[in-house]
Amino acid sequence: MAAKTLNDLFIHALSDIYSAEKQLTKALPKLARASTNPELRQAFETHLEETHGQIERIDQVVESCGIKLQRLKCVAMEGLVEEGQEQIGEIERGPVLDAAIIGAAQKAEHYEIAAYGTLAALGKQLGQEQAVKLLLETLEEEKATDNKLTILAEQKISPEAASKS
Amino acid sequence: MAAKTLNDLFIHALSDIYSAEKQLTKALPKLARASTNPELRQAFETHLEETHGQIERIDQVVESCGIKLQRLKCVAMEGLVEEGQEQIGEIERGPVLDAAIIGAAQKAEHYEIAAYGTLAALGKQLGQEQAVKLLLETLEEEKATDNKLTILAEQKISPEAASKS
Repeated sequence: MAAKTLNDLFIHALSDIYSAEKQLTKALPKLARASTNPELRQAFETHLEETHGQIERIDQVVESCGIKLQRLKCVAMEGLVEEGQEQIGEIERGPVLDAAIIGAAQKAEHYEIAAYGTLAALGKQLGQEQAVKLLLETLEEEKATDNKLTILAEQKISPEAASKS
Repeated sequence: MAAKTLNDLFIHALSDIYSAEKQLTKALPKLARASTNPELRQAFETHLEETHGQIERIDQVVESCGIKLQRLKCVAMEGLVEEGQEQIGEIERGPVLDAAIIGAAQKAEHYEIAAYGTLAALGKQLGQEQAVKLLLETLEEEKATDNKLTILAEQKISPEAASKS
């Protein structure tokens, strides 16, 4: 269905991130299982719980705007998940793999940061205040997760990986 | 080639973003041509020039680290570009398409922000000071482009699209 109005675009973008979040609920447990560092594993488990909450927030946005999501598959997130999976398949478990999957996870986080940023801007333009509030809550969670992963990578994972290299 | 050390991971991540940047040099002219708003078109043309400079910087990083890039295709950027292309194919030219391609472009920018952030962190851990300097220069350019697109979307494109809806 081609978008003709800003509202169509909002629905398309929301349907896309819904698919992306759903894909992440399947990918995050795999990242957690592949992680050696216990803090990293915990970060993925925590983010999985958050992701379930973010999907609920999308449902609330749908309800508050009185719209219906399209059934579509987010091909970009598919590519991002594939990238992470390839590294899990190729690299031996340990700090180097931990560093690789942190990088892959941060790419997924940034996909979401861009997506929720666009959605909040579209929602604002459409006068959907309640939706914007919800979208910005998720945006802040995604940014916080990204920051947490950066700190973990720089302070723990990279130094561990360097010492094993 | 599986990464065994942090240096292998650095080479893999650099090869990935090299492929991503190359794909962008082909995608950006299409985004520029599809844009109706002249400022948006100009932003993509400017970013195309920057992208050529960023590819040169990758070559400088390769030289400064004495490494060799792997031949690989960044599948995530392939998905991101495909998403933008689909919207160009489906949406009529005008402010709604402009809003759609700004969203797609910001996702690509965020992919790069995550990638260069990881690369700079890995380079720092590997003691590659000259490479880190170059990678951070590109990271700042990507963040500036993303900010420019956010301002353009919020101040010009979205209001135009809303008034036509």
